Amino acid sequence: MMPCSYLCPMSKPLILVTNDDGIVAPGIRALVEVAAQFGEIIVVAPDSPQSGQGHAITIHDPLRLRQVDVFEGIQAWECSGTPVDCVKLAKHVLLKDRKIDLCLSGINHGSNSSINILYSGTMSAAMEAALEGIDSIGFSLLDFSFNADFSGAKHWASKIVSYALEHPFRHGHLLNVNIPKLPAAEIKGIRVCRQCEGRWIEEFVEGKDPSGRPYYWLTGRFVKQDEGEDTDEWALEHGYISVVPSMHDLTNYQAIPELVNNGLTTR
Amino acid sequence: MMPCSYLCPMSKPLILVTNDDGIVAPGIRALVEVAAQFGEIIVVAPDSPQSGQGHAITIHDPLRLRQVDVFEGIQAWECSGTPVDCVKLAKHVLLKDRKIDLCLSGINHGSNSSINILYSGTMSAAMEAALEGIDSIGFSLLDFSFNADFSGAKHWASKIVSYALEHPFRHGHLLNVNIPKLPAAEIKGIRVCRQCEGRWIEEFVEGKDPSGRPYYWLTGRFVKQDEGEDTDEWALEHGYISVVPSMHDLTNYQAIPELVNNGLTTR
Repeated sequence: MMPCSYLCPMSKPLILVTNDDGIVAPGIRALVEVAAQFGEIIVVAPDSPQSGQGHAITIHDPLRLRQVDVFEGIQAWECSGTPVDCVKLAKHVLLKDRKIDLCLSGINHGSNSSINILYSGTMSAAMEAALEGIDSIGFSLLDFSFNADFSGAKHWASKIVSYALEHPFRHGHLLNVNIPKLPAAEIKGIRVCRQCEGRWIEEFVEGKDPSGRPYYWLTGRFVKQDEGEDTDEWALEHGYISVVPSMHDLTNYQAIPELVNNGLTTR
Repeated sequence: MMPCSYLCPMSKPLILVTNDDGIVAPGIRALVEVAAQFGEIIVVAPDSPQSGQGHAITIHDPLRLRQVDVFEGIQAWECSGTPVDCVKLAKHVLLKDRKIDLCLSGINHGSNSSINILYSGTMSAAMEAALEGIDSIGFSLLDFSFNADFSGAKHWASKIVSYALEHPFRHGHLLNVNIPKLPAAEIKGIRVCRQCEGRWIEEFVEGKDPSGRPYYWLTGRFVKQDEGEDTDEWALEHGYISVVPSMHDLTNYQAIPELVNNGLTTR
């Protein structure tokens, strides 16, 4: 007998939902509402904001998992750890006897385009699921505010989730989706892109605490360093949703001949 | 007049040294001793162990920098943040008016081969410097213990630092160097490799705290999923030092045609 697939009316896909802004952020509620149209949902998300946590994991401390009633009729756990910890606990503790069909992370309050994928807890959670062979999508809306309007993002995220369930990924398992801050009808469409080159110009705010000791507080601005029209930044600036297929192999294949030819290899 | 270069006897290269095991770990002392043969050293490293911090940055809290006297005759600061925070503060606060010629991170107590690059604070610090256009090398020794013998690692790290100063990288700026746990003379040489495919099989230790509340503590074992003889894991298993040129562009270029052909793009 063939196993049930997404297309089998008897089975609903099992969708893990997580984020980095914390389980009570409006963005994850929007994503749960999207996902609930398509399958059975399990939410495992941080109990506090975890923006900028990148691919951090918790090694030196125990982790806590607590079932919570945040989304009506949907199983949800809050976790004391990082976004990547949430995915590990979902996969290896809560759902260890089940197959997760799709992981959705977000919707992040703020962009994760370009090199921001490296710092993003949202994208690292999605990548962790992808490392486990689970098709995985991170969604981000280009609006940092708590009260961001997710209605346009939900409309387009539904299309992308529907696509992912109909077309399991053959070349890797991870999409980085960024959505411009526009009403749904003003978004021009979806573009498949490469990651834009850019960097942060850091400007630490320096101050003194009430005891007179100096501190430094990270701030800065992103500077695009890439004029290509095939990048995520270009797409977002022009009213498109950017989809960057992403991966965990960081090898710089282009540099291998340079190092060998220059004599670094000793054999 | 030509600017002074590495080769000019009037100038010594400025080398930033950092790590993720903390400024008092034996591994960073070994790396400072290596680096001091080649240039002027500035150390900026975490004031506490930061293993597994990946590319985490500190957004919601102020950061502290404190000058310390840990390495005789060498300027050193300990930082309250993550390894990536250390590099940002070094670049944009402590050394904002100077050019950093090379960043060295480590020597890590434990492997950062294969996908461990994603979780590694050591490698994320090196990548952060590379994002700033600074040639950068992360070193790791395959020995987790505090009392690891770094003598072989120092010998070979010296060769690689010497190479890097003589051959500024043209294709990207980042090397991931892993060193087997062997005496210097038993190491067969250096191999330039690609990142091995593999994954962690997580086995959370479950327990109850003194109040009776359950906790989960991350553990696990790495499983290689790649039989290639051109990988870092293969090199390390066979007594070689592995050097993987690495990069921050996570685009999965191979997947772009698949997504476009399947109709994800709407224009």
